[in-house]
Amino acid sequence: MTRYLTTITLSEALDLIRREFPPSIVSRIVSLTDSPGRRTAVPIFARYSVPEIHLSAMDGIAVRSRDTIGASEQHPVAIFNAARVNTGNVVPQDFDAVVMIEDVWEEDHHFLVRKSVSPWQHVRPAGEDIGESEMILPSRHLIRPFELGALAAYGLTEIEVISPGIGLIPTGSELVPHGVRPLPGQVVESNTVMAASMLSSLGARCKRYPLTPDEPDIIRETVRTGIRENDILVISAGSSAGTKDYTSDIIAELGEVLVHGVAIRPGKPVIIGKIEHKPVIGMPGYPLSAFTVIREIITPVLSQFGLPEPEPVLIRAHLTSTIPKDPGTDEFVLLTVGKIGDRYVASPQSRGAGVQMSAVRANAYLHLPSAIEGYEAETEVMVQLMSLQSSVDDALLVTGSHDPALDYLADLVQVRNVELHSTHLGSMGGLLALKRHHCHAAPMHLLGEDGDYNTSYLRKFLAGEELVMLCVAGRQQGIVSRDGTGLDDLPGRPFINRQRGSGTRMLLDHELKKHGIRPETIPGYEREAITHLAVALAVKTGEADAGMCVYSAAKALGLRFVPVADERYELVVRKEHLDDHRIKALFEAVGSPSFRSRLELLGGYDTTITGVTRELP
Amino acid sequence: MTRYLTTITLSEALDLIRREFPPSIVSRIVSLTDSPGRRTAVPIFARYSVPEIHLSAMDGIAVRSRDTIGASEQHPVAIFNAARVNTGNVVPQDFDAVVMIEDVWEEDHHFLVRKSVSPWQHVRPAGEDIGESEMILPSRHLIRPFELGALAAYGLTEIEVISPGIGLIPTGSELVPHGVRPLPGQVVESNTVMAASMLSSLGARCKRYPLTPDEPDIIRETVRTGIRENDILVISAGSSAGTKDYTSDIIAELGEVLVHGVAIRPGKPVIIGKIEHKPVIGMPGYPLSAFTVIREIITPVLSQFGLPEPEPVLIRAHLTSTIPKDPGTDEFVLLTVGKIGDRYVASPQSRGAGVQMSAVRANAYLHLPSAIEGYEAETEVMVQLMSLQSSVDDALLVTGSHDPALDYLADLVQVRNVELHSTHLGSMGGLLALKRHHCHAAPMHLLGEDGDYNTSYLRKFLAGEELVMLCVAGRQQGIVSRDGTGLDDLPGRPFINRQRGSGTRMLLDHELKKHGIRPETIPGYEREAITHLAVALAVKTGEADAGMCVYSAAKALGLRFVPVADERYELVVRKEHLDDHRIKALFEAVGSPSFRSRLELLGGYDTTITGVTRELP
Repeated sequence: MTRYLTTITLSEALDLIRREFPPSIVSRIVSLTDSPGRRTAVPIFARYSVPEIHLSAMDGIAVRSRDTIGASEQHPVAIFNAARVNTGNVVPQDFDAVVMIEDVWEEDHHFLVRKSVSPWQHVRPAGEDIGESEMILPSRHLIRPFELGALAAYGLTEIEVISPGIGLIPTGSELVPHGVRPLPGQVVESNTVMAASMLSSLGARCKRYPLTPDEPDIIRETVRTGIRENDILVISAGSSAGTKDYTSDIIAELGEVLVHGVAIRPGKPVIIGKIEHKPVIGMPGYPLSAFTVIREIITPVLSQFGLPEPEPVLIRAHLTSTIPKDPGTDEFVLLTVGKIGDRYVASPQSRGAGVQMSAVRANAYLHLPSAIEGYEAETEVMVQLMSLQSSVDDALLVTGSHDPALDYLADLVQVRNVELHSTHLGSMGGLLALKRHHCHAAPMHLLGEDGDYNTSYLRKFLAGEELVMLCVAGRQQGIVSRDGTGLDDLPGRPFINRQRGSGTRMLLDHELKKHGIRPETIPGYEREAITHLAVALAVKTGEADAGMCVYSAAKALGLRFVPVADERYELVVRKEHLDDHRIKALFEAVGSPSFRSRLELLGGYDTTITGVTRELP
Repeated sequence: MTRYLTTITLSEALDLIRREFPPSIVSRIVSLTDSPGRRTAVPIFARYSVPEIHLSAMDGIAVRSRDTIGASEQHPVAIFNAARVNTGNVVPQDFDAVVMIEDVWEEDHHFLVRKSVSPWQHVRPAGEDIGESEMILPSRHLIRPFELGALAAYGLTEIEVISPGIGLIPTGSELVPHGVRPLPGQVVESNTVMAASMLSSLGARCKRYPLTPDEPDIIRETVRTGIRENDILVISAGSSAGTKDYTSDIIAELGEVLVHGVAIRPGKPVIIGKIEHKPVIGMPGYPLSAFTVIREIITPVLSQFGLPEPEPVLIRAHLTSTIPKDPGTDEFVLLTVGKIGDRYVASPQSRGAGVQMSAVRANAYLHLPSAIEGYEAETEVMVQLMSLQSSVDDALLVTGSHDPALDYLADLVQVRNVELHSTHLGSMGGLLALKRHHCHAAPMHLLGEDGDYNTSYLRKFLAGEELVMLCVAGRQQGIVSRDGTGLDDLPGRPFINRQRGSGTRMLLDHELKKHGIRPETIPGYEREAITHLAVALAVKTGEADAGMCVYSAAKALGLRFVPVADERYELVVRKEHLDDHRIKALFEAVGSPSFRSRLELLGGYDTTITGVTRELP
């Protein structure tokens, strides 16, 4: 039975979830030490009082308070009936107060007391902490780590927590389990690993089933088992419309497909179904589609089981580029957010649903509601953080020309609590990002007509601005190949180029002109890759015979390299930011001996100018 | 060797920690699935590209793009050399593009294509996600749950994470392990349970050693083992100045006591020492002292090991009462914070260092710096949240007269995502808290001279305010005892009273007067407990022979009860708050059948008036 054949909106899907899956609680018992971060399923009551009897609150002597009446420094009172007690000791019966040890002199057969005490003074009464039968925690309480002290003291060793079971079934004959290196055409099954991690962090008990090939009979059996053993079932992949997608049919056969297709991007082919009253979700196979479906569809299902969605942390940020969008779809765009001066800026990541690194690189995302037709660059939007606020505040935005050494700078500044986020837009892209206050630092290598790097471009595009150029290194650019191809051999050979506006592309054009080679003679001149490594990789896989990149990228992939030119690779920052802790960390990292030795290991860098600064104007 | 004999300030102690324990990283390998929430110890690089070869980005046919030139709806092109591919399949060598299946007609021996494709269209190039040798994560990166998808896909099964080892040694002959019910004078060892939970949530690997009695030889051996097996050692208790405190001597013997005593409250007797260059902390035995020392001293030690302190969440709040303090000490006061109208109000919890429930009840704390001499009531201060911001925003502050039924209301409103925080100040205290906008609802039972409950007091103290009174129940007050003592038997019998300003105290006085009993004839009339249960408990433990409380408290502890009067127990709220979701949840809870049946189980309540509302003026 298929109730919906067409795509519904996200808001309709959420209504559907609330309607079809009424609130219910599934609990299990966990040990006290496993309880932090989970929610109580039932209220917890004290089975005994703490303390159960009166205890001394001080080191001293337990006395009858009436025996101390009138005691003072000048007129100490002798006490014959008393008991030495330390903090926490039981106050013996018949005594009703404690005199602190510093107000007592011990004599042979009695004590001299120089301060009177009132009844029950310095005594912790029974039940002071908690009384028998009192409620310690209500149900649905989120257990905080420090509460384990109280819970242990009150005699609890196990806690009944809310913990619905989620079964995760990975389907697809192309899958290999994680830890196995995929052969060509195979893919590591990672989506249920991600789902288990995300959903168990919310309190669910996740069970991953073995990889299930694209065989309807096997999938059907696994789904039957999954429904029997869990409260919620997630079937990974098999939810788009390829030749081997059986999920929808099997759900319909065993239960009901409530909807196949929700107008969200990424994640549209999601299935919401029901078997034996239990929710069944068909999760699309593209990693970022799966990520979105876990967050926007499965998490709301989980909240019907008493595990609320994580608290959103929203901040206002200005978009660094335009995000186009068709109306009628809720879209989710991953972002890199950082703070420049007083304002946050947000740069959209690649929207490719297969690029998992976008999620790793992102520290926030933007939800574009259905009705919106995209946002213009510079629009102020509310973005949802995916990292700690502090790590967003410590983000160092580096936008421009790419170099493998930036990875090592990222590692070095992290020790100083700075998160370097690198966006590869090429040297010209970096220049414009710096101009528009969209980054803190712009790496570039733009050869001017005066023969100097960067200065003439900065004078032109950031006229009058006070800038500092920090040299990362001199570096060698050249032709990468499997067979030692040189610049003059390029005509007629399949080539992979860098994007327009990149310093490397501009350098290539300069050199081609110098050597009298026309671009039209180079097949693939129009194909653009956005990093040195992507160029080298295209050559390694045989997609191209040659490309232009820095030596370190060729070396990293074991390829041959014919040098073409030496250039100056600099990071440009605004002078006013020199005192910013992120910029300081960047300068320290570039100047550090460990960075220099790393450059030497990578190879192809001239480190004699590493750390040299120049100023403009 | 004792370097400091006197107390130092917190700020000096933190300087000392940074000076004596230079930054260092200790790592261990954990499985990928255990890595979320932990920090990478080293940068992680991609060992292979993902994808390793070109994959189809669509379901369709792989083609040579040049074969499709000119294809259109009107003029489809026949392709003889092509391969059927699904999304994710390898694009076979010699092909450089994919035509989407919807643009293809399959014929007997060829395909008809009605759309041309450009080179590499609908192809995911090798390395699109990540390229071999690229850095996936820098060191010290906090792993987020969703990143496990990428890490699994990139072939990682284990992660080297920052994870210093902390040994936790509980000392004290009075201790029993948690799970064992303590005999009189015994205490459940809970402080290392709390420490392990808090410190492992920050990424440390915690090892709890067996309970160690107060025997110097045994403690010394355990400390030697602890130092050998860990990077940081925490010795619990034995750090104050009682008769059996050996910690300081043993640290001095095996290493060095850097400081014994830091001017913080609670937590002053803390020891900071060093054995074999490793930090050794003597943690005081009172639970809230231990809590403070873990947070303020041990956590900074941990941050020297690469695990930063948790991100503080600070909000502005107005204090509901004055907090006195001596200058020279940094004090930490646990708070209950809630939002009333537009402002947050913060009520200090009990400052008793043994009352662990204060931490359970608290959702924030206040740090009073050394130089401050306390704060006046109504001062606006910055408070540090200990709960989610949303749970603070959902806090329902109920201040006034206590009744055991409030626990059940707390449980019922929690289902509606409302956190009920009950503060026991008695009926008059509640009246004043409501007047001062320090609570949302004030429970009270104040018998006026007109014979009606509450109205005359509200008219007098909140004149002109629009109020709503919600009846929780009629309830029976009486004399609780072990032997059936009645009101007229009180003279000469040890008594436990309620605090001045409580409705129960006022009712007792009213009844004593009516019966012609003078308070001076009742021993213990001056002793005050602040809840019904505390009164019943004092009677149960034999501390008093009788007291006055509601029936349910007597019943909960299996005591006898002689009724004295019936009264009306009402919750008073401001009319303007009736639409607030917290107040709505409260009204719904009081009106619910499950609350009524709970009252009947508790006993002594007249539920015929439960849920009845009255309005003033």
